[in-house]
Amino acid sequence: MSKPFIHPDFILQTETARRLYHEYAEKLPIIDFHCHLSPEMIANDRNFNNLGEIWLEGDHYKWRAMRSNGVNEKYCTGKDVSYEEKFQKWAETVPMTIGNPLYHWTHLELNRYFGITTLLNKDTAKEIYEKASAMLRTPEFSVRNIMRKMNVKVVCTTDDPVDTLEHHIKIASDGFEIKVLPTWRADKVVVKVDELPVLLDYFAQLEKASGVKIDSFDALVKALDLRHEFFASLGCKLSDSGLDRFYYAPFTKADIDAVFGKILAGKELNDTEMEQYRTAILLELSKMNHKRGWTQQFHVGALRNNNQRAFNNLGPDTGWDSIGDPQKSYPMSKFLNTLDTEDKLAKTILYNLNPADNEMMATMIGNFNDGSMPGKIQYGAAWWFLDQKTGMERHLEALSALGLTSRFVGMVTDSRSFMSYPRHEYFRRIVCNYYGNLVERGEAPDDDSLLKPIVEGISYYNAKNYFNF
Amino acid sequence: MSKPFIHPDFILQTETARRLYHEYAEKLPIIDFHCHLSPEMIANDRNFNNLGEIWLEGDHYKWRAMRSNGVNEKYCTGKDVSYEEKFQKWAETVPMTIGNPLYHWTHLELNRYFGITTLLNKDTAKEIYEKASAMLRTPEFSVRNIMRKMNVKVVCTTDDPVDTLEHHIKIASDGFEIKVLPTWRADKVVVKVDELPVLLDYFAQLEKASGVKIDSFDALVKALDLRHEFFASLGCKLSDSGLDRFYYAPFTKADIDAVFGKILAGKELNDTEMEQYRTAILLELSKMNHKRGWTQQFHVGALRNNNQRAFNNLGPDTGWDSIGDPQKSYPMSKFLNTLDTEDKLAKTILYNLNPADNEMMATMIGNFNDGSMPGKIQYGAAWWFLDQKTGMERHLEALSALGLTSRFVGMVTDSRSFMSYPRHEYFRRIVCNYYGNLVERGEAPDDDSLLKPIVEGISYYNAKNYFNF
Amino acid sequence: MSKPFIHPDFILQTETARRLYHEYAEKLPIIDFHCHLSPEMIANDRNFNNLGEIWLEGDHYKWRAMRSNGVNEKYCTGKDVSYEEKFQKWAETVPMTIGNPLYHWTHLELNRYFGITTLLNKDTAKEIYEKASAMLRTPEFSVRNIMRKMNVKVVCTTDDPVDTLEHHIKIASDGFEIKVLPTWRADKVVVKVDELPVLLDYFAQLEKASGVKIDSFDALVKALDLRHEFFASLGCKLSDSGLDRFYYAPFTKADIDAVFGKILAGKELNDTEMEQYRTAILLELSKMNHKRGWTQQFHVGALRNNNQRAFNNLGPDTGWDSIGDPQKSYPMSKFLNTLDTEDKLAKTILYNLNPADNEMMATMIGNFNDGSMPGKIQYGAAWWFLDQKTGMERHLEALSALGLTSRFVGMVTDSRSFMSYPRHEYFRRIVCNYYGNLVERGEAPDDDSLLKPIVEGISYYNAKNYFNF
Repeated sequence: MSKPFIHPDFILQTETARRLYHEYAEKLPIIDFHCHLSPEMIANDRNFNNLGEIWLEGDHYKWRAMRSNGVNEKYCTGKDVSYEEKFQKWAETVPMTIGNPLYHWTHLELNRYFGITTLLNKDTAKEIYEKASAMLRTPEFSVRNIMRKMNVKVVCTTDDPVDTLEHHIKIASDGFEIKVLPTWRADKVVVKVDELPVLLDYFAQLEKASGVKIDSFDALVKALDLRHEFFASLGCKLSDSGLDRFYYAPFTKADIDAVFGKILAGKELNDTEMEQYRTAILLELSKMNHKRGWTQQFHVGALRNNNQRAFNNLGPDTGWDSIGDPQKSYPMSKFLNTLDTEDKLAKTILYNLNPADNEMMATMIGNFNDGSMPGKIQYGAAWWFLDQKTGMERHLEALSALGLTSRFVGMVTDSRSFMSYPRHEYFRRIVCNYYGNLVERGEAPDDDSLLKPIVEGISYYNAKNYFNF
Repeated sequence: MSKPFIHPDFILQTETARRLYHEYAEKLPIIDFHCHLSPEMIANDRNFNNLGEIWLEGDHYKWRAMRSNGVNEKYCTGKDVSYEEKFQKWAETVPMTIGNPLYHWTHLELNRYFGITTLLNKDTAKEIYEKASAMLRTPEFSVRNIMRKMNVKVVCTTDDPVDTLEHHIKIASDGFEIKVLPTWRADKVVVKVDELPVLLDYFAQLEKASGVKIDSFDALVKALDLRHEFFASLGCKLSDSGLDRFYYAPFTKADIDAVFGKILAGKELNDTEMEQYRTAILLELSKMNHKRGWTQQFHVGALRNNNQRAFNNLGPDTGWDSIGDPQKSYPMSKFLNTLDTEDKLAKTILYNLNPADNEMMATMIGNFNDGSMPGKIQYGAAWWFLDQKTGMERHLEALSALGLTSRFVGMVTDSRSFMSYPRHEYFRRIVCNYYGNLVERGEAPDDDSLLKPIVEGISYYNAKNYFNF
Repeated sequence: MSKPFIHPDFILQTETARRLYHEYAEKLPIIDFHCHLSPEMIANDRNFNNLGEIWLEGDHYKWRAMRSNGVNEKYCTGKDVSYEEKFQKWAETVPMTIGNPLYHWTHLELNRYFGITTLLNKDTAKEIYEKASAMLRTPEFSVRNIMRKMNVKVVCTTDDPVDTLEHHIKIASDGFEIKVLPTWRADKVVVKVDELPVLLDYFAQLEKASGVKIDSFDALVKALDLRHEFFASLGCKLSDSGLDRFYYAPFTKADIDAVFGKILAGKELNDTEMEQYRTAILLELSKMNHKRGWTQQFHVGALRNNNQRAFNNLGPDTGWDSIGDPQKSYPMSKFLNTLDTEDKLAKTILYNLNPADNEMMATMIGNFNDGSMPGKIQYGAAWWFLDQKTGMERHLEALSALGLTSRFVGMVTDSRSFMSYPRHEYFRRIVCNYYGNLVERGEAPDDDSLLKPIVEGISYYNAKNYFNF
């Protein structure tokens, strides 16, 4: 090969795409408004020991690919295997991932963090491992320096309402110039009504965190609202919900009080009662988001923990999840409408996991875009399994055909990894390529006065203006 | 830009596409067999006062885009804002619609109706508004002259069975050379069984229109059949149904008589009874279509009126609808089969709103294409939200891979706007581009003796032969 | 046209695609591990009399296209019409199939079997018919010689557990060098619980074949297991299930025994009981597959026999089937998990019929790829209606983005026709074109040391290693 695999025009197929990327998108900072980074690691400004650790300590994408390639579990999550050995197995897997985003992510990360242009495979593994690991152990590769190097301006982590947010407090107090803000994710209190002991235990934690005795639905709302206020006091501007689907069952106050009495008494609920509880509490949480001017995110549609054997051994989030059925549009519409009817619908981002729903979701947002601000309701970036080139392209196609991509708040890493920032670059290249193709096919004017604000908006300014961190 | 955005080869990426379009498709007249034009406006040969009025008086596509762009409702549907002000807001929105069909429609319409090649934006708005508005006020831009200018041969409007069709009668009687035919759309009598007062009020209107007292299910069928016959007498050749889904519940005559008794008594029906009623009446209507040699259209899958606040203020069809869930294939199959079993299945066009169903629908039609005529059961043109470039391309891909696109009866505007005829041009360009790409990739022979009849068929002749107006 | 429609680089759009195909994929033999060929015809080494017979005797794809083209049923399945007349009607239909896989299959088959390069249409029909028919009547075109000519190494037919497999025995015993192996397909015993007389009649056949009296669920399992062992003794390595969906209902041994008692007594089961029975027996069959090291295939999602009139006249599998709704991911996951939990999940191939499920399915397999071998759970080749260019491309895109296409076991004809082997060629061309496009767009390295093993694997070696015939 005369030119390296990752070269300046990677992904950019047209002259217009190259110009849009290099002149406008490339240099803009990163607002990563949804991720799963550890605030503790940032507070402690952790250094990783080697490339195996930073890549394979917790990356279920890589584990999953390795397993599909026939690699034994011990090289994925095993405790008795060195990171060097694990890395070797990963390196053997990499050439088999051609066509998968992992192939691009891997080589982008090697290049952008370590300046490595060699393709990773079993033969190059050792040299790459040693070079990158040596760099990772230097102060320049502490996680804060990584974030600086990657031109990150804001990071929003994902946090439980009962969290003390001590790490966020420390990060803010010690003068780290990159904003590291919490995100409110109250899934347990919504979802776990089907496992009452878990829910009641959670109530106990929430009582402790809030100082409110949870002896009624109203008290639960009060306790959550106090924590919500606390999150806001530390700069939180977003909530998130990870749900298999939207809930919607009509209910009265009396219904909910009765249901809540059963919960406190530890009595199993029937399906209607569970649906009412979930609808009610999620509505209350959504109203808090509206009250405080936050943006609420809904990640819907994962089918989690499909492999019981693996779950028993490894726990959740270890690579055994998949895409669920198409969403029901009716409860989604009704839930959002209930809030809108009271004029309590916060800025909202809907993330979709099943591409069969791309068009449904891209039109759903239009039902509640009421002209009060540009792009109030957003069709969120292609997520998880869809966070790859065709997934993003179809997201852009659906949103463009059925809404205004120009108002799109853009990319998030949604990642646990400090190595994942090149996904913003990857996304921007795909966005520029998308508009370049429109121009190439004569479907958009070849006019930077039109395209520059759109590309810069999607890359950075739309998020900046939308969230107002 | 050296060449204007809308140029002769707009959309046409290959030599073959350009040849197919310019030599065959471009010059053919338009049969617009499904639209929502106002027969009254045609009867009165209305002139519009300005470009704001003709574009923004009733176009929920544009309103929806404006709202997503943060434009206040008063500039969409407000009564106290001038069309010039509204137009300015629309012009500001247009550059943000790049990638959306509105960007193409807007500039195609400016070009084809007014010869305007300037791109619309906030700075060009005033000049464009004045030029186009002045032209609109001339006799050359009465709605009949617009239709003549656009080479329209047949238009089928959408009409209620209780309609007097007085405007159609006037149009026919005053010698307008373009056929303006009614289409039978009896949705209320099918759907509104879940709102009995509305249904019973409708029965009253139908009694008046038909002269038949509706005191039994049979009487209802009789009343509808008389109106159906009346529509036929005025040249009606199509019916249409706008349904969220197909209905199918087995029933006996006694069941329906009992259900109908409850309806007349104003007693709420349970789900099974409603499904039986809807199945029964839709079957009866379908048999009328078969009896009179009509074509029946089914537009399924919209999720309507999602925003209650907007519905209360603005009513239906104002831009708050979206794409519903994938259809259930079983009731669709059973409904059609029930008619086919009695050999009473009329020519049928199925329109799909959720692209997740493209392939299901494109194979469903094959189940009832029995060889009695070419393309008896049709997979209708990409509709509403899907009436855009990628929507049409996927429709063509699905129909081609799973059926015979060569027998496709082609495009309809489905529009309320006299400005929407360029959508036929847009469609034909996409069709020619589709076949051009097949040839370019070597997937179809580069042979006009094969491609000309297909392209001409889809553009015009298939509809001409299928409907036989 | 200067070059013939079917030329050496058909489908291959890039230099890389052409190199990958001609240097690696083209020359590899065929393992057709799922088809519906008649073992009897192979045992008897049938010769066909003419091109009409071999093409139109049983090909519901062609019938369906002819019917959509308005061809009367008598030219499809009629008994009183000669194959020459039928062929003429088919030839008239062929030019209308441009864009459909039939257009490619037809001309590939004419070319690869008979060296015919003329395009088929009404005018060329007679000449082509005569030339090909004359060749078909020669010994070189006996079905065994066809298989030899097409470089087939293994064929797996589809067989019922009660089948004597006499033809397989004969084929093996007379020294035919191509492996013709049975595949176990026990659909009746699973599905027909909703038609008890059919199920009980089937039990009677199974009693006869196995020598086991089926007086309990355990006895049924015993009888099936004996037949399963018999199939294994003749080289069977695969099972197949053709289901509308996966079943999953929890049950106890007592539940199943009770349900089975009702079955034997001919008492109608309720929905739960039917679901329990189907779950239980399919689990048992799956455990047998695991026990004997077989691969189990699941073809899910067809909506069959939609046209009752046609079914009454012509029976099943005559072209009146279509694509069903998206699958429910939950029972699919639970069913597979139940087996996995006991470590009795065999190698498994999931075939999908609705492209709305492409991504769901492509992620489902990852839930059970446990690292025990490469690609243990497979997302099977684009099937039936999806066995066409866009269907395959989307399959490859989904599998690549969400899994490891490099481990894909590849193509099957799934066909009743001895003329269908060029579908392997067609598939390989599409695979090479897919990788060529990745390289062209800079998404994969232009490096044969990476691409050769992938392309050769998908074409041949992955299946060879996976099944180990």
